[in-house]
Amino acid sequence: MDTTAVTTRKSFGSDNHSGTHPAVMRAIVEANAGDAVAYGADPWTERATSELRRLAGANGEAYLVLNGSGANVLGLGLLLARHEAVICAESAHINTDECGAPERILGTKLLTVPAPDGKLTPELIASRLSGHGDEHFAQPGVVAITQSTELGTCYSLAELSKIRDFCAGNGLRVFMDGARLANAAAFLGCTLADLAEHADVLSFGGTKNGAMGVEAVIVMRASDTGSTPYLRKQHMQLASKMRFLGAQFIALLEDDLWLRNAAHANAMARRLASGLAGLPGVDVVYPVESDAVFARLPRQHIAELQREWTFHVWDETTSVVRWMTAFDTQERDVDEFLASIAAVTGAASP
Amino acid sequence: MDTTAVTTRKSFGSDNHSGTHPAVMRAIVEANAGDAVAYGADPWTERATSELRRLAGANGEAYLVLNGSGANVLGLGLLLARHEAVICAESAHINTDECGAPERILGTKLLTVPAPDGKLTPELIASRLSGHGDEHFAQPGVVAITQSTELGTCYSLAELSKIRDFCAGNGLRVFMDGARLANAAAFLGCTLADLAEHADVLSFGGTKNGAMGVEAVIVMRASDTGSTPYLRKQHMQLASKMRFLGAQFIALLEDDLWLRNAAHANAMARRLASGLAGLPGVDVVYPVESDAVFARLPRQHIAELQREWTFHVWDETTSVVRWMTAFDTQERDVDEFLASIAAVTGAASP
Amino acid sequence: MDTTAVTTRKSFGSDNHSGTHPAVMRAIVEANAGDAVAYGADPWTERATSELRRLAGANGEAYLVLNGSGANVLGLGLLLARHEAVICAESAHINTDECGAPERILGTKLLTVPAPDGKLTPELIASRLSGHGDEHFAQPGVVAITQSTELGTCYSLAELSKIRDFCAGNGLRVFMDGARLANAAAFLGCTLADLAEHADVLSFGGTKNGAMGVEAVIVMRASDTGSTPYLRKQHMQLASKMRFLGAQFIALLEDDLWLRNAAHANAMARRLASGLAGLPGVDVVYPVESDAVFARLPRQHIAELQREWTFHVWDETTSVVRWMTAFDTQERDVDEFLASIAAVTGAASP
Amino acid sequence: MDTTAVTTRKSFGSDNHSGTHPAVMRAIVEANAGDAVAYGADPWTERATSELRRLAGANGEAYLVLNGSGANVLGLGLLLARHEAVICAESAHINTDECGAPERILGTKLLTVPAPDGKLTPELIASRLSGHGDEHFAQPGVVAITQSTELGTCYSLAELSKIRDFCAGNGLRVFMDGARLANAAAFLGCTLADLAEHADVLSFGGTKNGAMGVEAVIVMRASDTGSTPYLRKQHMQLASKMRFLGAQFIALLEDDLWLRNAAHANAMARRLASGLAGLPGVDVVYPVESDAVFARLPRQHIAELQREWTFHVWDETTSVVRWMTAFDTQERDVDEFLASIAAVTGAASP
Repeated sequence: MDTTAVTTRKSFGSDNHSGTHPAVMRAIVEANAGDAVAYGADPWTERATSELRRLAGANGEAYLVLNGSGANVLGLGLLLARHEAVICAESAHINTDECGAPERILGTKLLTVPAPDGKLTPELIASRLSGHGDEHFAQPGVVAITQSTELGTCYSLAELSKIRDFCAGNGLRVFMDGARLANAAAFLGCTLADLAEHADVLSFGGTKNGAMGVEAVIVMRASDTGSTPYLRKQHMQLASKMRFLGAQFIALLEDDLWLRNAAHANAMARRLASGLAGLPGVDVVYPVESDAVFARLPRQHIAELQREWTFHVWDETTSVVRWMTAFDTQERDVDEFLASIAAVTGAASP
Repeated sequence: MDTTAVTTRKSFGSDNHSGTHPAVMRAIVEANAGDAVAYGADPWTERATSELRRLAGANGEAYLVLNGSGANVLGLGLLLARHEAVICAESAHINTDECGAPERILGTKLLTVPAPDGKLTPELIASRLSGHGDEHFAQPGVVAITQSTELGTCYSLAELSKIRDFCAGNGLRVFMDGARLANAAAFLGCTLADLAEHADVLSFGGTKNGAMGVEAVIVMRASDTGSTPYLRKQHMQLASKMRFLGAQFIALLEDDLWLRNAAHANAMARRLASGLAGLPGVDVVYPVESDAVFARLPRQHIAELQREWTFHVWDETTSVVRWMTAFDTQERDVDEFLASIAAVTGAASP
Repeated sequence: MDTTAVTTRKSFGSDNHSGTHPAVMRAIVEANAGDAVAYGADPWTERATSELRRLAGANGEAYLVLNGSGANVLGLGLLLARHEAVICAESAHINTDECGAPERILGTKLLTVPAPDGKLTPELIASRLSGHGDEHFAQPGVVAITQSTELGTCYSLAELSKIRDFCAGNGLRVFMDGARLANAAAFLGCTLADLAEHADVLSFGGTKNGAMGVEAVIVMRASDTGSTPYLRKQHMQLASKMRFLGAQFIALLEDDLWLRNAAHANAMARRLASGLAGLPGVDVVYPVESDAVFARLPRQHIAELQREWTFHVWDETTSVVRWMTAFDTQERDVDEFLASIAAVTGAASP
Repeated sequence: MDTTAVTTRKSFGSDNHSGTHPAVMRAIVEANAGDAVAYGADPWTERATSELRRLAGANGEAYLVLNGSGANVLGLGLLLARHEAVICAESAHINTDECGAPERILGTKLLTVPAPDGKLTPELIASRLSGHGDEHFAQPGVVAITQSTELGTCYSLAELSKIRDFCAGNGLRVFMDGARLANAAAFLGCTLADLAEHADVLSFGGTKNGAMGVEAVIVMRASDTGSTPYLRKQHMQLASKMRFLGAQFIALLEDDLWLRNAAHANAMARRLASGLAGLPGVDVVYPVESDAVFARLPRQHIAELQREWTFHVWDETTSVVRWMTAFDTQERDVDEFLASIAAVTGAASP
């Protein structure tokens, strides 16, 4: 197969344009030894989930699932009473990027709030609480936050703490979409447990951080785990040869590979943002706190850049693009990309 | 990791207790080269799905999904009108083994029929058609058959043809659960297209046939494909690093590995069944037409065998067990297992 | 409007072929006085629901809904955890007569059991409990029984007690479909509370017992009421001009009209069954314990009778019909019907 | 029962605080004659639905349902493919007042747009069409408009025509929530057919216009009716004693009572708005084009008025109230209310 077309230049399109980290791939290959009971009753899954539990400081349980949508919908579903709704930011992945999966699968309504920098606050959450106790209005039961956010920003631990307290005081539970939780831990310099303690249930992403395809749903309290195995199966997220999911997380957790991968991707995003600093006509529009850089630049420059580089236009109307790094982005990739940007924007010296 | 516990003896528990076929694993490792656009816009996925289409003789499209439940629910969902129900055998996997996923995800009712040998017939289907046009009764829109069946039997092409004609004449569409379609093709000595032409939509299983974890949903008519990409996403079956799914099918389709794997597993099941022939107190209860042997033997013998061998009791009340082979079951595995059975049942010569 | 076509002879087709009891109609007309706050915040609703609570001995709450399907689905929905299934008799109305509404609306699976005389027993319930704790199998959370049953039979209080105890001991909750609960109370000579105490949630039918169109969902424990108002609204069962629903139940509860109506209908069914006793070729196939008589008679006699009388063939294959009485069936209606049956079956004297 | 508490003063809270129009009540009482086959196979239902069809100029069918939520969810459900989403105004009843019923029952996502005066336009609709054909984004299939709107405004026929054309050109179908369609017809001076021709499916409200409790779902094209009877049943909107629903619409349609009721209510709203014109501190915030007046006035004046009069605060933050009239609002009710407002706002002469 000719795959050169897809590999000539590093993609800045998404952290899931990368392949699998070599250590993860090795773990997968090594797990391919003999028979193992299916659906998770194997030593790899047992080891991965017990380490995830420990790392998150969870009294509940960790469950491996197949992708990020699966993690989000399962996490929400196990927290929501049948009639309840979800409060989330307008920019939340569950609202914008999952084709309506939460509504389709859970029958829940998303009560969205415009959130600057993609982050909810107690005040923003409060703005969707009117109608409490009135049967005509959707009744929020869960607040969903994303850490790091879809806009590349991170909640500080203090911000998470305020949300957590507000929710506890208002009968709301917290789901944390952690598709890029590793990037947040790396940015904040905190442990997984420091983040997890602010949620009732969280997802912890592997795929965007070097795995081939695996996510974890971590339930913090044992009393919340009851329905999860059944919902995971009903949601079609139970893998039969589960050991290959377990092996991926074992590799990511070994010697903190998950954290090192994320720290590296973050550093590459910062390098990119720094390099943009002096360029005329390119504005970085959100704080760069994970592996994404959102920048505004003239439309014709975007088009020109896309001839050679892979990335997404985030908002056509405001001419904002998203540039993402990954665990395998190299300094030279960033520098070459910066050179192209400089050339396109006319900032390059002749 | 000490995995010896799980590898000392070949499992006869399920074809998904096996690992990944070496050729499939090689393909996965080789696909880990450079970047690729996510969610299926990559050359591996393109190649795999176009070969699947060709192999099935489909004018529609092939879609890769993450597991068997995902394939079944997606396949049913794209065929069912919002209000319609499904006719299936009581023993159908969608009825017995998916924790109610079709009902939960699709909101559909399964109209089940007791089916000898796990196979539906026009007569059995007709028995669930009363109430047509009466709004009080669930209205079947799809007939779901499994090929090969959950009881290890196969529909002949003539039987499939009768079902197909009956359904066409009664406004019913046909979904074929092909988690073990390869075993059926191997048993019948026919092509995938010979089977596929009897369905409107079918799944084609990779996982039980040597893949690490991938299934295909094949839509035979182009006019039926419209909603599938969106439903796949809503059903949380869209992989981000899709190339690793595509690579698996590429390996399985190369030089008919899928067919050779299935033929081998079938042969091992026949070898097992043949070996049982002379054993007192062991009755094979269904025709052995794929990779499963269902046998009745005394309860205490089951318990004794399970001390050393891994397999499932299919029905506690009738004392029937299911013994499954796989692509990697060896003749000596079968022979050792037969020796144990003979020893336990007292048939062994001293 | 010429309505004579529909009124020449009393229908034995269903207890909902009758109109509205005059006392209920009077209450509706009287409730049409001035304004009242909508959606149940009116004195009629308050009075009706508080009397229903008292009559059922409920610590929870009573909710008025629009029809029987609405009552059943709401009652099941408030008891079921998101992932759970329902055990019921194959002949249960929720399984056979609601077009798959429980599956569609709740996403739940019905685990059905063939039940002689339409009645579940602990043994029959136990037959659907295998797979408990195994994520591949649907997990029953609720047992649904119908009192009186769809076959015109009644559970005795002792039978209810056994089911209740078995369920309590197996982590199952009990929903009682009481579309014809009044007929059961009349037959058993017990109070509504005597019946209600065996359920966690029950419906109490008004429509088949003289109302124009209203049913109640009674939640026995206060701790189970939390989600009900919201689910009622989501299930589209919240009436705006609720006072007209409340008024109907006020009339039915006044001077035990509900019980007198049911007792009368039961008596008419017994009169019919008694009259059949001597007729050749007519077999009553279930005990007559409410307002229905199920009888087997030759196909050509059924056809002949249907020329003059309105009733349903229950089972074409076994040639069984259902004859129902109602609060307004008169002795002379029964006697005329008996005379026709006798004439048709050749038992009539010249 | 002492109902004086609720009748001392005309409510301006909602058009469903009124009772049933005497002519409708008479029709209900007259329909209570003899037996009638249940579930709609009766002459009242036949007459009502055929007149509704004719009045709307529909080639499809009219279906009676139990309430407005039921009409909306059924209407949307029959138009939506399984995976599709709905575009509607943020202020749409389906978004704000149904506790998330469309999401719960249909699993659909509502793509909302802030809409001045509650009215969508082609431009506003277009703003939610990005992502067409991309499986990550919810795919709109239906545009839902309300006529007259939740803010008391009406789309002109020209505005409807533009929406209709835009939708036709963009593969979108139109659902018209006509809970107050009569008020729109009265305001615009047009026929029901003039309005209906701009929709694929519409609801036509009876309850807010003098009925006791009935709404119609009108399907304009015969080819769209196929699933409706089954969905109506699954949605628990099929009444058993349907004749009492049919009778209500017969009365409303007789001599255009529906139109006269609506015209009267509209006139009362205009009288109220006119009377407000000179009052200091009271601003009418939307054009008064149906039976609702939205006004902004100081918070303390609202509180004072509510001591004597029943009405809703529409928006606490902007201090806007909603005052609704009804078919039975009298001129003197309006004048007394105006006098109270004048007194409270200090505009009254001593």
